[in-house]
Amino acid sequence: VTGGTGFVGRPACALLTAAGHQVHALGSRDADLRDPARARALVRDLAPSHILHLAWIADPDRFWTDPENLAWVRGTTGLIEGCLEAGGVRFVGAGSCAERLEPPTLYGASKAAVRALLEGSGLSWAWGRIFHLYGPHEHPKKVVAMVIRSLLHGQEAPATSGEQVRDFLHVEDVARAFVAALERPLVGAFDIGSGQAVPLKHVLERAAQAAGRPELLRLGALPARAGDPPRLVPDSTRLREELGWRPRFSLEEGLADAVAWWRAHAA
Amino acid sequence: VTGGTGFVGRPACALLTAAGHQVHALGSRDADLRDPARARALVRDLAPSHILHLAWIADPDRFWTDPENLAWVRGTTGLIEGCLEAGGVRFVGAGSCAERLEPPTLYGASKAAVRALLEGSGLSWAWGRIFHLYGPHEHPKKVVAMVIRSLLHGQEAPATSGEQVRDFLHVEDVARAFVAALERPLVGAFDIGSGQAVPLKHVLERAAQAAGRPELLRLGALPARAGDPPRLVPDSTRLREELGWRPRFSLEEGLADAVAWWRAHAA
Repeated sequence: VTGGTGFVGRPACALLTAAGHQVHALGSRDADLRDPARARALVRDLAPSHILHLAWIADPDRFWTDPENLAWVRGTTGLIEGCLEAGGVRFVGAGSCAERLEPPTLYGASKAAVRALLEGSGLSWAWGRIFHLYGPHEHPKKVVAMVIRSLLHGQEAPATSGEQVRDFLHVEDVARAFVAALERPLVGAFDIGSGQAVPLKHVLERAAQAAGRPELLRLGALPARAGDPPRLVPDSTRLREELGWRPRFSLEEGLADAVAWWRAHAA
Repeated sequence: VTGGTGFVGRPACALLTAAGHQVHALGSRDADLRDPARARALVRDLAPSHILHLAWIADPDRFWTDPENLAWVRGTTGLIEGCLEAGGVRFVGAGSCAERLEPPTLYGASKAAVRALLEGSGLSWAWGRIFHLYGPHEHPKKVVAMVIRSLLHGQEAPATSGEQVRDFLHVEDVARAFVAALERPLVGAFDIGSGQAVPLKHVLERAAQAAGRPELLRLGALPARAGDPPRLVPDSTRLREELGWRPRFSLEEGLADAVAWWRAHAA
């Protein structure tokens, strides 16, 4: 599991270990996977039966346009080369709803480029497109984490009007989707979502209720982000029907879990 | 011009030089452009106003599936990085009709991946999809060159039945399309073709007539290639309307030119 110490990688490794798999979690300190020769050698040396490739540039301030996205494309070609040399390795990668945005960002384009390469690679591959998520260890600059943390600190939480429709999942349910894709032979891309999209303001209102301070949420205090689409929603058909995935958390349960985690860790 | 000593690069450089541009033609001996750091440094050192990126694995026996395609994706990301750093560089690349084939080959997927990256890069970019071509310096394993050479040697030329519909251009007209894309501000992908698709057998019959030995052409002597689509045809609308391109050669004139060249060089 590359990115095995990251937001999705952490629960993915926990689920895989709990299911009895032998897991090698790679974090950024273990190897620079942006170096294709290093990535290729790593596949040769570890000889995995499956690769879950989650590592990528993740800094919310930079990832949309940073040229480092190109380095992650390169590193991923090294993983693909390693798999082609080893033979028989199943490759599951993390895509993004950004692949659907027009005009594309460098991030979305880089994810789409890797998906195209996998499609032509001849490998057994799957590509789970992550849409929206929240949960333990979320980056504090992401909207759900930001609102929960502010409220737990007794501070106002300014937000946009929140009319944009999204499908939010607890990160553990996202991880569960990747585990299902590792364990089943599905080939191709699939979206990761509950199938129940709601306006963002519903998510934030429920988060505020779970945090016990609904009066501190300031919907409409921030302007809408330029280019933020009014509706960005996954098609969960393949995930449910071909991978047999079901979410463990309802939105209320998931947000309550996130609030409990931030309460214990926000300090 | 990367691949500046190659099949399309050679006439492209000649046309650019004739048009008064200062041209730096890079061949495989000048630099290994599969190395992204080398490619990036080259853009920095040469500081071009425009890049025409034609270099890629071209061996007809290998290019469809060879993992070296991944190295060309990597090298191209280095060129893109160099352009992003330099700013203001116009980037024109060579795509392929293979981007249209299903299921995709690693070659077609790699070309599609680069196109996706350009789309997200923010550069001024164009992407000319090469379909079918012939002419001086063609690889002797390609069908038109093979037929012409066999006939000029007085040998039989076995071919498929040639029912598959294709749009063949003289390589100089393909090069002219890339020159037009360098000189105009069109952004995005365009197909390179005459707009007049014909069954392959018509092309081979005319080539055989131009070579003066039509009786040696053996249409139907070879089985159809597995996966060869019955129709693979460019849409030349953007090329003609937005780039103002017109072919210089009719099919008869172009094939006559190719035969004359092979007569002088086949030895």
